[in-house]
Amino acid sequence: MKELKNYYELNNDTVIDYLKSKLDYFDDNADIVSQEIGDGNLNLVFRLIDNNSSKSVIIKQALPYVRAAGESWPLDIGRGEIESKILKIEYDLTDGLVPEIYCYDGEMCCMIMEDLKDYVIMRTGVLDLVNYPKFADQVTDFMVKTLLLTTDVVVEHKEKKEMVKDFINPELCEITEELVYTEPFGTYERNSMEDFMVDFHKEQLEGDEELKLEVAKLKFEFMNNAQSLLHGDLHTGSIFVNQDNTKVIDPEFAFYGPIAYDVGALIANLIMNYLYTKTREDSDEKVAHEKWLESAIVDCIDMFADKFLKAFKESATDEMAKVDGFDKWYLNEILVGTAGVTGCEMVRRTVGFAHVKDLDCIEDDEKRKWAKQTNILMAKELIKSRSKIVTGKDYLKVIEKFV
Amino acid sequence: MKELKNYYELNNDTVIDYLKSKLDYFDDNADIVSQEIGDGNLNLVFRLIDNNSSKSVIIKQALPYVRAAGESWPLDIGRGEIESKILKIEYDLTDGLVPEIYCYDGEMCCMIMEDLKDYVIMRTGVLDLVNYPKFADQVTDFMVKTLLLTTDVVVEHKEKKEMVKDFINPELCEITEELVYTEPFGTYERNSMEDFMVDFHKEQLEGDEELKLEVAKLKFEFMNNAQSLLHGDLHTGSIFVNQDNTKVIDPEFAFYGPIAYDVGALIANLIMNYLYTKTREDSDEKVAHEKWLESAIVDCIDMFADKFLKAFKESATDEMAKVDGFDKWYLNEILVGTAGVTGCEMVRRTVGFAHVKDLDCIEDDEKRKWAKQTNILMAKELIKSRSKIVTGKDYLKVIEKFV
Repeated sequence: MKELKNYYELNNDTVIDYLKSKLDYFDDNADIVSQEIGDGNLNLVFRLIDNNSSKSVIIKQALPYVRAAGESWPLDIGRGEIESKILKIEYDLTDGLVPEIYCYDGEMCCMIMEDLKDYVIMRTGVLDLVNYPKFADQVTDFMVKTLLLTTDVVVEHKEKKEMVKDFINPELCEITEELVYTEPFGTYERNSMEDFMVDFHKEQLEGDEELKLEVAKLKFEFMNNAQSLLHGDLHTGSIFVNQDNTKVIDPEFAFYGPIAYDVGALIANLIMNYLYTKTREDSDEKVAHEKWLESAIVDCIDMFADKFLKAFKESATDEMAKVDGFDKWYLNEILVGTAGVTGCEMVRRTVGFAHVKDLDCIEDDEKRKWAKQTNILMAKELIKSRSKIVTGKDYLKVIEKFV
Repeated sequence: MKELKNYYELNNDTVIDYLKSKLDYFDDNADIVSQEIGDGNLNLVFRLIDNNSSKSVIIKQALPYVRAAGESWPLDIGRGEIESKILKIEYDLTDGLVPEIYCYDGEMCCMIMEDLKDYVIMRTGVLDLVNYPKFADQVTDFMVKTLLLTTDVVVEHKEKKEMVKDFINPELCEITEELVYTEPFGTYERNSMEDFMVDFHKEQLEGDEELKLEVAKLKFEFMNNAQSLLHGDLHTGSIFVNQDNTKVIDPEFAFYGPIAYDVGALIANLIMNYLYTKTREDSDEKVAHEKWLESAIVDCIDMFADKFLKAFKESATDEMAKVDGFDKWYLNEILVGTAGVTGCEMVRRTVGFAHVKDLDCIEDDEKRKWAKQTNILMAKELIKSRSKIVTGKDYLKVIEKFV
């Protein structure tokens, strides 16, 4: 763990002088105001705006503990360094599908970065039933480029191993191993569920040995398969969008892991928004959003698969990777894993430590219960039948079966 | 790559003073003689004996290039540090199934270590048709203890990830990736085969697309599955034996990889000695050695499997690893991989860069051709049908089919 010598927590007052000491970003006569806009658990996020020019910048500072739990749950403060390195790599690989990093300060664990002021956090947007017609195309670009292009299908193997080493991320991986792959399937203090979920959880999750065996397999895949440089937390709260563009943020969970982990996290969060949408009052907007979500789910799988195979053919360097049929086998393994991860993410967001607003914000008790229980039943199907869930249509079939 | 500042290659004269400068091992009046006994490609190995006391010690110095290829194939000289670290870990895990390390010198890339003078290199012994009745029991102890006890089934996950990082071994892994998993299946300069193998290689290996697809899968498993701290080169030339004991040496290829890689390398080398034995003149000794080899192959698989499950039950700490049925699934994956690795090792030792004496030393041309071609045919069966080759008996069936 990194020692905190000159570190102090920034606030809306101190952050302005801090920026001036680090980067000559605003004009001399700028009228700068700061607002803390973080909604995560692990960081402070300040937006600094010059009221004269409307120019703005983001300063993200890593906290030495999990905010929701307080100082009793300490974290390695140095993780921001990984994050800024990753964002630079992803920026280059994807031609700007992540924000630009201006500067990283290891002493204060701060990243100074592009302000995505014309964007909204995707989760906020989709809870307002906003559709993003370019999203699936752009996010599958992001996934194929960041994921395939960091595997040893493409990267020289010694270089890839140095990257595996650089990006080993024990603390944040442990959070995933516990909160995604362990605790939601048993009785643990950090689990969080409403009363109507308690017996359901015992019966459908904790009591289902066949399910837990499949989750155990997925957990060891997560821990051992150093396939590709993942984002590691690719849900709709880690994505900024608008009608034209997509920018992925917050890669602090990044490490070399199974590609399926990123794709599955994304699909799960789209499905949970779909369940939320189903509980909304009938309207044209609702129908349109459902339709868009269905196509987004299908496209995020099928466009990913198509682009992956195309990029594989274009960029594979490993001689054995070029053997006939290897590309399709490799992709199929990823897709099977994706369905499994999708299910695990849906479970943990319903009964585990960190929920999603899509399910928790449903006001009507009966509808919320329906959404949460349906989410668990779909998740179980995705996990147990994952070997047969490999196309966008396969996902729609699972959804249709339960909704 | 480590810089060589004060490094020089030792010889039988200089090594004696070198030892005195490092370790007070012999008496003052000792009459020390040195003999270079290395038969490997990557190191000089000196045995220093005091003629007065018969006390002895081994000094192993890493070379900065592959000896067989000369200075045109450079290697990272610092790899001995990994090796001495691993030997210490393995010594502790296995209660002495590897030699004791007295000292490691990073400047000269030298390990000063226990001399196993009452032992022979196993390959030499089994070429003389010597049987080692305790071998299978001891080597399966070695494998279960070094392999299972370094996985995240047992080791705390953050600690395991630090070990993965410490033991990333890009240079020597690259050798395996190329010489085991790539070159023997294509046309490469470093391949080495007799005239009678050239067409056979083209047809049976290079021309078999289905086989190459399976090898590609195994190659990516080797590169990505950071399951356990492997020895990395567990053939009969890396094992010292006598009638009572077994000591594993030379773990310089060690890294976090798939358990199957160690088990498969071992089984392959036993099978190749079996083929060698079949070409010997009939004798009681031959019959006894064949019988012992059959039981050794069966025991190395079945005792490994039994001990693995027992140790798993006793030492698993991961909560999900304890789920009903996970241990058997985990073991089965290892055993399936083992058959695949066995086949790859048999192929590369026949047509690749580094052969084994067991096949090359067969004097009769027709018998040698039979042994090498039969070896390839068995290897193909092991690779292609690996999902069904999971018990000792399954291996004997493959052998019976071709011998």
